[in-house]
Amino acid sequence: MPRWESDAQGRLKRAALELFEAQGFERTSVAQIARTAGLTERSFYRYFPDKREVLFADDELQAHLVAQVEAADPDLTPIEALLTALGTAEEIFRPREFLLRRVRVIAASPALAERDLIKLADIADALVRALEHRGVEPGRARFITDVAIAVSRRATSRWLADPDATLSELVAQTAAELREAVAPPTPTAG
Amino acid sequence: MPRWESDAQGRLKRAALELFEAQGFERTSVAQIARTAGLTERSFYRYFPDKREVLFADDELQAHLVAQVEAADPDLTPIEALLTALGTAEEIFRPREFLLRRVRVIAASPALAERDLIKLADIADALVRALEHRGVEPGRARFITDVAIAVSRRATSRWLADPDATLSELVAQTAAELREAVAPPTPTAG
Repeated sequence: MPRWESDAQGRLKRAALELFEAQGFERTSVAQIARTAGLTERSFYRYFPDKREVLFADDELQAHLVAQVEAADPDLTPIEALLTALGTAEEIFRPREFLLRRVRVIAASPALAERDLIKLADIADALVRALEHRGVEPGRARFITDVAIAVSRRATSRWLADPDATLSELVAQTAAELREAVAPPTPTAG
Repeated sequence: MPRWESDAQGRLKRAALELFEAQGFERTSVAQIARTAGLTERSFYRYFPDKREVLFADDELQAHLVAQVEAADPDLTPIEALLTALGTAEEIFRPREFLLRRVRVIAASPALAERDLIKLADIADALVRALEHRGVEPGRARFITDVAIAVSRRATSRWLADPDATLSELVAQTAAELREAVAPPTPTAG
């Protein structure tokens, strides 16, 4: 059984996801989430400051990515280090079905979509610092991180749609798409 | 006199910026902003729903960019169309000094930084739709927009630091940096 299934925090997350799916984020209360998880409201607030945080409180992804970038081969270029790290996020994203449901619930609620943007920006900030620790100049670290996250977003949405591919394969494929998209145009007649 | 200096909305924006700089976003009230602008609180709320919106209510940038993408040469690739459009934002960003102060005030306040992220995401959504109107597949339109915005963020911060360069030159220079950063490594011995 994955770790997330064994604890109160995981039960609250799954209960929240089910309720947000069934009746929407706005119409779901903390009391309902707690009741559905078989816990008290007080337990809920031990883990999450409010209901908007239920799907976001987990910093596992950020910690994983930062550790991967810090451990990356020093010979990798900054974008290679980031893309290699982002390609390993699959182990955090599993189970895929949970992530897919989470993505849909977030897309359906402006409040959750805003929270998701801010969370992604926090992860980006942490990756910028990790690149800076590798000696990358801050402005360039920000730029390379923004680009790598663009690649990762596209690769992750492909991964959610395609159960047969690995995330790291799709990251590599999307990086190739980027190279092709930014290549200088081949001169044509006229 | 630029248009933004002539109207009540512009006076409120400049008053808010001055107060946010002098005493911080949190400690500034709508009443103070209105008073500093020589207007009533009621006038303030005619233009802005709350003080967080004062620096963001202007949709001129988004409208400008979308119009540029829609008018772009059909032969341009999606990223060329976006980068050409983003390179023309200079006329909207002027006066540069106002943008520079705005960037600093936003960076100093988490509430404003969150609002800025959401505003940027709204602009990105509009650019994705503009690319879709050019026939670009939605997933690719999102990806190319994310990458172009990464380029634009870096070019804009360079433009703010360098009074002698044009934004479109810096966009082109940053696009070249991107090509170089994602180029496959040249094989080396060992």
